Amino acid sequence: MEQAGIVGHRGYSGAELVRILERHPGVEPVLLEHREEHHAAPRIRRAQGPKQLPCTPEAVEAARLSVVFLATPPEVSMELAPGMLAAGAKVIDLSGAFRLRTSEAYSRWYKEPHTQPALLAEAVYGLPEYCRERIRPARLISNPGCYPTAANLAIRPLVEAGVADRAVGIICDAKSGVSGAGRKPSLKTSFCEVTENFSAYSILHHRHVAEVLLVSGLEEREFSFTAQLIPIDRGILETIYFRSDKVKSAEELLDLYEARYAGEPFVRLYHPGQQPDLRGVARTNFCDIGVTFDAATGRGVVVSAIDNLVKGAAGQAVQNMNLALGFAETEGLL
Amino acid sequence: MEQAGIVGHRGYSGAELVRILERHPGVEPVLLEHREEHHAAPRIRRAQGPKQLPCTPEAVEAARLSVVFLATPPEVSMELAPGMLAAGAKVIDLSGAFRLRTSEAYSRWYKEPHTQPALLAEAVYGLPEYCRERIRPARLISNPGCYPTAANLAIRPLVEAGVADRAVGIICDAKSGVSGAGRKPSLKTSFCEVTENFSAYSILHHRHVAEVLLVSGLEEREFSFTAQLIPIDRGILETIYFRSDKVKSAEELLDLYEARYAGEPFVRLYHPGQQPDLRGVARTNFCDIGVTFDAATGRGVVVSAIDNLVKGAAGQAVQNMNLALGFAETEGLL
Amino acid sequence: MEQAGIVGHRGYSGAELVRILERHPGVEPVLLEHREEHHAAPRIRRAQGPKQLPCTPEAVEAARLSVVFLATPPEVSMELAPGMLAAGAKVIDLSGAFRLRTSEAYSRWYKEPHTQPALLAEAVYGLPEYCRERIRPARLISNPGCYPTAANLAIRPLVEAGVADRAVGIICDAKSGVSGAGRKPSLKTSFCEVTENFSAYSILHHRHVAEVLLVSGLEEREFSFTAQLIPIDRGILETIYFRSDKVKSAEELLDLYEARYAGEPFVRLYHPGQQPDLRGVARTNFCDIGVTFDAATGRGVVVSAIDNLVKGAAGQAVQNMNLALGFAETEGLL
Amino acid sequence: MEQAGIVGHRGYSGAELVRILERHPGVEPVLLEHREEHHAAPRIRRAQGPKQLPCTPEAVEAARLSVVFLATPPEVSMELAPGMLAAGAKVIDLSGAFRLRTSEAYSRWYKEPHTQPALLAEAVYGLPEYCRERIRPARLISNPGCYPTAANLAIRPLVEAGVADRAVGIICDAKSGVSGAGRKPSLKTSFCEVTENFSAYSILHHRHVAEVLLVSGLEEREFSFTAQLIPIDRGILETIYFRSDKVKSAEELLDLYEARYAGEPFVRLYHPGQQPDLRGVARTNFCDIGVTFDAATGRGVVVSAIDNLVKGAAGQAVQNMNLALGFAETEGLL
Repeated sequence: MEQAGIVGHRGYSGAELVRILERHPGVEPVLLEHREEHHAAPRIRRAQGPKQLPCTPEAVEAARLSVVFLATPPEVSMELAPGMLAAGAKVIDLSGAFRLRTSEAYSRWYKEPHTQPALLAEAVYGLPEYCRERIRPARLISNPGCYPTAANLAIRPLVEAGVADRAVGIICDAKSGVSGAGRKPSLKTSFCEVTENFSAYSILHHRHVAEVLLVSGLEEREFSFTAQLIPIDRGILETIYFRSDKVKSAEELLDLYEARYAGEPFVRLYHPGQQPDLRGVARTNFCDIGVTFDAATGRGVVVSAIDNLVKGAAGQAVQNMNLALGFAETEGLL
Repeated sequence: MEQAGIVGHRGYSGAELVRILERHPGVEPVLLEHREEHHAAPRIRRAQGPKQLPCTPEAVEAARLSVVFLATPPEVSMELAPGMLAAGAKVIDLSGAFRLRTSEAYSRWYKEPHTQPALLAEAVYGLPEYCRERIRPARLISNPGCYPTAANLAIRPLVEAGVADRAVGIICDAKSGVSGAGRKPSLKTSFCEVTENFSAYSILHHRHVAEVLLVSGLEEREFSFTAQLIPIDRGILETIYFRSDKVKSAEELLDLYEARYAGEPFVRLYHPGQQPDLRGVARTNFCDIGVTFDAATGRGVVVSAIDNLVKGAAGQAVQNMNLALGFAETEGLL
Repeated sequence: MEQAGIVGHRGYSGAELVRILERHPGVEPVLLEHREEHHAAPRIRRAQGPKQLPCTPEAVEAARLSVVFLATPPEVSMELAPGMLAAGAKVIDLSGAFRLRTSEAYSRWYKEPHTQPALLAEAVYGLPEYCRERIRPARLISNPGCYPTAANLAIRPLVEAGVADRAVGIICDAKSGVSGAGRKPSLKTSFCEVTENFSAYSILHHRHVAEVLLVSGLEEREFSFTAQLIPIDRGILETIYFRSDKVKSAEELLDLYEARYAGEPFVRLYHPGQQPDLRGVARTNFCDIGVTFDAATGRGVVVSAIDNLVKGAAGQAVQNMNLALGFAETEGLL
Repeated sequence: MEQAGIVGHRGYSGAELVRILERHPGVEPVLLEHREEHHAAPRIRRAQGPKQLPCTPEAVEAARLSVVFLATPPEVSMELAPGMLAAGAKVIDLSGAFRLRTSEAYSRWYKEPHTQPALLAEAVYGLPEYCRERIRPARLISNPGCYPTAANLAIRPLVEAGVADRAVGIICDAKSGVSGAGRKPSLKTSFCEVTENFSAYSILHHRHVAEVLLVSGLEEREFSFTAQLIPIDRGILETIYFRSDKVKSAEELLDLYEARYAGEPFVRLYHPGQQPDLRGVARTNFCDIGVTFDAATGRGVVVSAIDNLVKGAAGQAVQNMNLALGFAETEGLL
């Protein structure tokens, strides 16, 4: 039985990681206590939670953790990663700290300097559908962002196949449940501000744009992205617009996705006329994709749906762990 | 005191009409009972509702109603409109029956024949910001659809000013609260199917596309439209994407909207960096518009928000009534 | 035109006060800026909000405000009230600072000392249906709590008429929307913690119990109260249980309420078999009451519903202002 | 591998049954097609659902189904049960058809005659915590109602121990998510009627009262019950009020529950001061119980929470199946 440490297990992604690992037959979760916190009083009698350890390289080394998940803000991930790696654990980071390729890109999009440029160069981007073989041997895996996961799985086949008219560009209109904003209380995520409401934010300038460009192969001027907040707990749905004079029908478009994702356990395609919804992916590691194409106008729409806390965070992190530790890729995830 | 009949007052738009007219100082609402229905038992003691009349031309004529609102499906509106007009009432129709210009267009988008082609030719489209002077003397006013109202108020200034690159086209990603689907129970609008969910429907082929093309001046191949269901009661927010090499900044874009909508009582513009949300327009007749523009890529985004039952239906209908009966345009609506 | 100051206008009750007063024909709202705050950037172009003044007795006196509303925490209300009274304004306090009769009672239920015992003695409890004549001449009006308003309007008629079996006692199971907890961000009121959830808090020991006992006339051992959080924005519904061998039917019970509330503009009674719901009172100043009685078992249930921000806070405050300034009691509230 | 038929697999309880059984290591679900329905178009490509069979005794016998779940209305359950039993399957009925003991009781509470009085006499009530040994050998198991499950697990220990003052009686204020009303579209469960709303129904006369009396041992005059609709998908929380001069503290009360439920895998108790919520039981087969007691007034409150579709329906049905087929009681449920 391998042991997996989780830093940030009180956040929504971290708590989801604990839940998934508790069902994983080959791994036992260990809570790493990053900071002194107000510990909530125990609630349920006789309930026994996971093992706990201090969040130090010494403790990680002594306990021989195989992997440490960092479900922490980027600056904390940059601070903790070197020690955990030195302690012999593989590190899977759920923050944005190691997703871009250069310190410059990081500074531009994250508005703060990168403190671990060497690790940035070493980190492997953890989107298994496109980077599987590099993930297996990696020491440091950078788990993709939630918006980019849904976007890249939908867009990259269009770009790879040269189907989309890049002069016209691709539009990604993204909608996310509120858990994507994290568990820290703020007015923006207060119930009374969110319920019966809907709004857009970070229009054209969301930091996740950098990750979409990097993976999809699009240029900046070829891509527009808007993030929007839906009054639900979890889920991301992205509506992606493109134009093409290369494909002739939704069926032809679907064949292209079928060819690309044949054998992929976590990408599901919808029949023409059918569309994914968030309920269909909730609490699963699936990315569901549906396509529409109007031959008369050459206009196409791809809808891509994930659970932001699973395929968009904790589930994909476990998928990466499975690859890195040699488990079946779907272990604990179906 | 003028009297205004409402057919379909049990539906969401009709009930909203009754509420607005009850506060209107110059008009008294009269419920027209279109069909035998299971009458709900009276609930509140000593409560007195609006006056009721049978839904017949004779009753309308005898009671000298100045106007009749049809908050009914298109086929019912086509059936009722001629009699109400003959009875001397102006007619404001909230259905799609009289929004397009020809029987052919109607058949194509509504998938059924039009039974009143003569009235179709006579009907005036009731978007006051663009058709005010034709609305005043009209006998038959066709109240705009909810999606097209938000879309056209945002898109037409871009088209009129020649700012948007029409070869690239304009994308409208629309999201609506559930009341837009009407009050008739269906699985699609059941609470358990909608809550904690989000989905797209009628992608590229929604019947409201025809209305947007007609008013905005866009060609079919220049426009993509997707409708989506948000788990909220009321509100429409549309995120509209375009490209331009004519404007240089969000400020310049806003000046264009300011010029177009100066003096318009129900269009509000947001400062650059600020965005409308649905809460800001709920239960109001406002259309709120915010713009973003990225000069480096030439990409722009316009966000347009309305309450689908007010500016998208009942409120705009009363705005049209005010014009047609000679009241101040904002009477009962601020 | 009288002027009314509002301290705490950024909170949910305070903002509701501003909205109501903007529609009041005889009063103009003035925002009193209690503290240096991060001022939000202005959002809407050319929008003009209410007049603003510093929150000082000097400014209040110079501007000759007729009344100052304190939509502030109890400790702030105790701090501000004396100065505002000295400046010649009537004060309507929406906090719990002046609702109980003695410093001792206040310390017991609010867990902190009362700093203005003299004002506590002077304050008049602002439940118009029971204290109307004392409210009219009052300088300092203590606006009732949200839970107690719904509870007392339902319970006191039972106690006054000697109908309820007091040995068995009365149970009040209360449910509230989230806005009742105020606008300050906290984990408890975060969207992801509240949505798709429901929970009880302050079981048997809520501080509002003191107010219910005081007004209803019940003894502590005769009353159980539980507060619960519903995932909605606004509204309180209370389900109240009692036993009686004095009444024989729901009709008889309703007659008792009818007699008590004849002529009350803001209490509405439901026919037997009909029940109030929160939608029916949302954004209104009504308290809706429905009753059920089972003669075979002598068991009765009264359901009482209000909008916690209107009849439970801002609306009732304006009702009190109307009484204190000599307006019609319903002015601005129907 | 045993095979389990499910009739009514399109309803919310039936669909939950399929989901649970798909994870059960010893049982394979088989969909029994009860009636010609509009079959939804297949949505996901290459997806393979469970096996399907006609809903006939012949098919059930030929396929040697070990058990058939009836997630159907009572009248359909009465119609199908005899044939399924004759075909050699055990039957677990999720409707109310076989929950009461006599035809007379059934007619009184369900307002229609019982057509299978012999089976009514044979049926075993499937609340494992109280009827475990009778469930194991049973041919026909009547799965408890959702409200009664939460009520009886909380109330019966109080009655058994003689702790509650029965002259005062016990009040159960119950709140349920909307899925409890089933999947059939109706105005009452339409999104726009339910969201931002809350209401009570069947006050004092809900048909589930009969089941609570039967299992808890209370008399009709000792019990008041109100059902209420929360705007959430799933979950039941019941707040239960009693008076006692026998217990002295919450701790003492908890000891009583601990003693009763020691070793019960699906009943969890909360520490004093802590309360269950619906999120804690969502998608689990747990019943969570928290207690409060005020020694000064002798008043106690028990909060009981379940997922209405799991412990309140499909999960408990699988728990019963595990007992009846000889699996570990928790198989597929943790």
